[in-house]
Amino acid sequence: MTIEDHSAVGIRRRIASGHATAETVVREAFERIDAREPTLRAWVALGQDQALATAEALDRGPERGLLHGVPFGVKDIMATHDLPTRCGSPIYRDWQPPFDAAVVALARRAGAVMVGKTVTTEFAHFNPGPTVNPHDPARTPGGSSSGSAAAVGAGMVPLATGTQTAGSIVRPAAFCGVVGYKPSFGLVDPAGVKPLAVTLDTIGVLGATVADAALFVEAVSGLGLVAVAERAGRPRRIGLCRSPAWDQASPDMTAAFLGLPARLEAAGAAVVDCALPPIAAEALATQMRIMAFEAARALAFEAEAHWTSLSPRLQSLLTEGRALSRETYARDRALVPRLRAALDEVFASVDVLISPSAAGVAPPRDGGTGDPQFNRLWTLAGTPAINVPGLRDPAGLPLGVQVLAPVGYDAAAIEAAAWLERVLAG
Amino acid sequence: MTIEDHSAVGIRRRIASGHATAETVVREAFERIDAREPTLRAWVALGQDQALATAEALDRGPERGLLHGVPFGVKDIMATHDLPTRCGSPIYRDWQPPFDAAVVALARRAGAVMVGKTVTTEFAHFNPGPTVNPHDPARTPGGSSSGSAAAVGAGMVPLATGTQTAGSIVRPAAFCGVVGYKPSFGLVDPAGVKPLAVTLDTIGVLGATVADAALFVEAVSGLGLVAVAERAGRPRRIGLCRSPAWDQASPDMTAAFLGLPARLEAAGAAVVDCALPPIAAEALATQMRIMAFEAARALAFEAEAHWTSLSPRLQSLLTEGRALSRETYARDRALVPRLRAALDEVFASVDVLISPSAAGVAPPRDGGTGDPQFNRLWTLAGTPAINVPGLRDPAGLPLGVQVLAPVGYDAAAIEAAAWLERVLAG
Repeated sequence: MTIEDHSAVGIRRRIASGHATAETVVREAFERIDAREPTLRAWVALGQDQALATAEALDRGPERGLLHGVPFGVKDIMATHDLPTRCGSPIYRDWQPPFDAAVVALARRAGAVMVGKTVTTEFAHFNPGPTVNPHDPARTPGGSSSGSAAAVGAGMVPLATGTQTAGSIVRPAAFCGVVGYKPSFGLVDPAGVKPLAVTLDTIGVLGATVADAALFVEAVSGLGLVAVAERAGRPRRIGLCRSPAWDQASPDMTAAFLGLPARLEAAGAAVVDCALPPIAAEALATQMRIMAFEAARALAFEAEAHWTSLSPRLQSLLTEGRALSRETYARDRALVPRLRAALDEVFASVDVLISPSAAGVAPPRDGGTGDPQFNRLWTLAGTPAINVPGLRDPAGLPLGVQVLAPVGYDAAAIEAAAWLERVLAG
Repeated sequence: MTIEDHSAVGIRRRIASGHATAETVVREAFERIDAREPTLRAWVALGQDQALATAEALDRGPERGLLHGVPFGVKDIMATHDLPTRCGSPIYRDWQPPFDAAVVALARRAGAVMVGKTVTTEFAHFNPGPTVNPHDPARTPGGSSSGSAAAVGAGMVPLATGTQTAGSIVRPAAFCGVVGYKPSFGLVDPAGVKPLAVTLDTIGVLGATVADAALFVEAVSGLGLVAVAERAGRPRRIGLCRSPAWDQASPDMTAAFLGLPARLEAAGAAVVDCALPPIAAEALATQMRIMAFEAARALAFEAEAHWTSLSPRLQSLLTEGRALSRETYARDRALVPRLRAALDEVFASVDVLISPSAAGVAPPRDGGTGDPQFNRLWTLAGTPAINVPGLRDPAGLPLGVQVLAPVGYDAAAIEAAAWLERVLAG
């Protein structure tokens, strides 16, 4: 079998054509998990028996939906009624919710089979879990959706859920060489996902391909994405956006990114440089303050009842957030509509923007999960952002590029990302 | 002791001056609960031992914050680590979360003492619980914050939390003759509150007085409200807003509301008629569709796993929500910024608007919890809305008037509501 056969789209095709059953697909996934999990450590809980039982039930019934028989992982800040939800924190060591998060219930309604819960950093902030990078065990998989990115990167499952508050989908996707799709803010319902910062937390997915990510988000949101992912039409004009963090990019990223225009133009797209308006430079600090302010509220119980069980880094965030005034927060939040309007003007002259997904390849594990400096702007603005793999450094480690479109233009972002994926693979 | 002494502001004063301890205040609250709960049925769980232990600990320490020693109730869709959270549904009969909702943790941080969980309708939708109206046991207390409004209305506690997705704070406050304060959308963090419709769900409070409600929301949000509630300055211009639902108002409400201008002008304020722009007429149906669409996502697990445990009315909402297209939803959501802009133009010529809080007095219990037709518009727009009691029908039952201000202008709404409260009491 090819790697294609293990993608969600490939699994759908094999099951629909009678070349596989949901049960065999789930067994294959657990074989790949068993082979690599001892070193990868992407999972906090696995549910093989219940996954097989679910798959067998699917095999006995009619097609359930877009994800019929597709195995997937669930980030461990999302509630599941049949596996614990530990949020990457000893505080929730024993928590077994009696419900599924909305995104999990909707994926299951569409026929997806949860195989387990994936490692998250502590409450989706920065304190890392045990997961290593599938391309180099000495490097971080990124975070906070660490286990989801690593599991998809290692080919264990074609899909795993993620959330992004700063850079927690796009960055680990870049480091693990997979697709990471952060939809427009609010496209996927956040019910049942442990909140970190309520105006920033965005539910999305890590996927083996752009088409897989599109399949998942169409299944859980109802937005039409599968057809545009298949079409993968060439964008006419692509904006090259170095972003305000450009001076932090590594030499490898700089070279790879600046080599893109020639390849994209050879593939038939026009590429133009797009400078961002001055307000974009304010976005980084603004996003950090909003995240701290909101986290200090959302995690007020954990701070009151379990302070000493929080990591020093999370303690710092909450302390910083408590010290911020409501007036500062109101001023920061007022930046968001102005930022969106300014970005809309940039987007007006191109179909999509592309920008580095991270400063470079995955850094060593002892340095944390990497920096979301290339992501905070887009999370604050609420735009769709899709990491597309394909670029590599000289040592063969993945370098990520993200495709960006205005808020609500997820279909345009997915179509351009699917096209870019082909160009970079070709 | 006077009723004033049992308000949150009065309790603070008594404790600060040494005339009461937190323990005696909590004991008084349980005496009032014991006296009326057998008929009122406002509580689903009471925690007397832990409340007394908390109060005794407060009495041994320094002043904790704005709510030091103030007893309060918590709507039972808000997670609490020390009492079950049943969400008004048999599905959650046994749920004991390991955490507090943010609003609960923040209130406790400020020194508030939770005495118990108050009755909610099923998942804060319309299927009623057992609570009766404190002014007439044959009538509804309103919903969905039924127990909170009734408990405050009966004088059991001066404060109880609420949420409003359609009219679930302002309407029960009107029916029970208490203050109901729905802050601007997002002012109070929703973490740990069971979601019904994520872009509408608004966390707020039922209070004995406007000053009490202001005290609570300042304590949990950091927004300065106490000083303006104390000042209670007269608004210069008040807009009289009949609202698109005006033809549904009862004769008693019509007479009471149209009698207001003379009283307000006698108190020194100018009153002008304010017609709403045509877009306001679309808001009612738009809010209903958004609520159905989002509820069908947020409650996807309950629909999948526990369909037959849902009430027929909630089943209808979820079925309706599943049938709505993503395109319809996107169009409906796009109305919100246009609605806000149109309302801002109306607000530009006045300090605040006043409008009926409900069609009339509380209807009989066998007719449900009443209709939120006078509330949906303001919840959709996200404006602060404060029910002010004081008007009554000829039989003495409460009629509510709500004070409205633009999104973010909570201080203006609180100040005008405090002034109106004095005028209607005088």
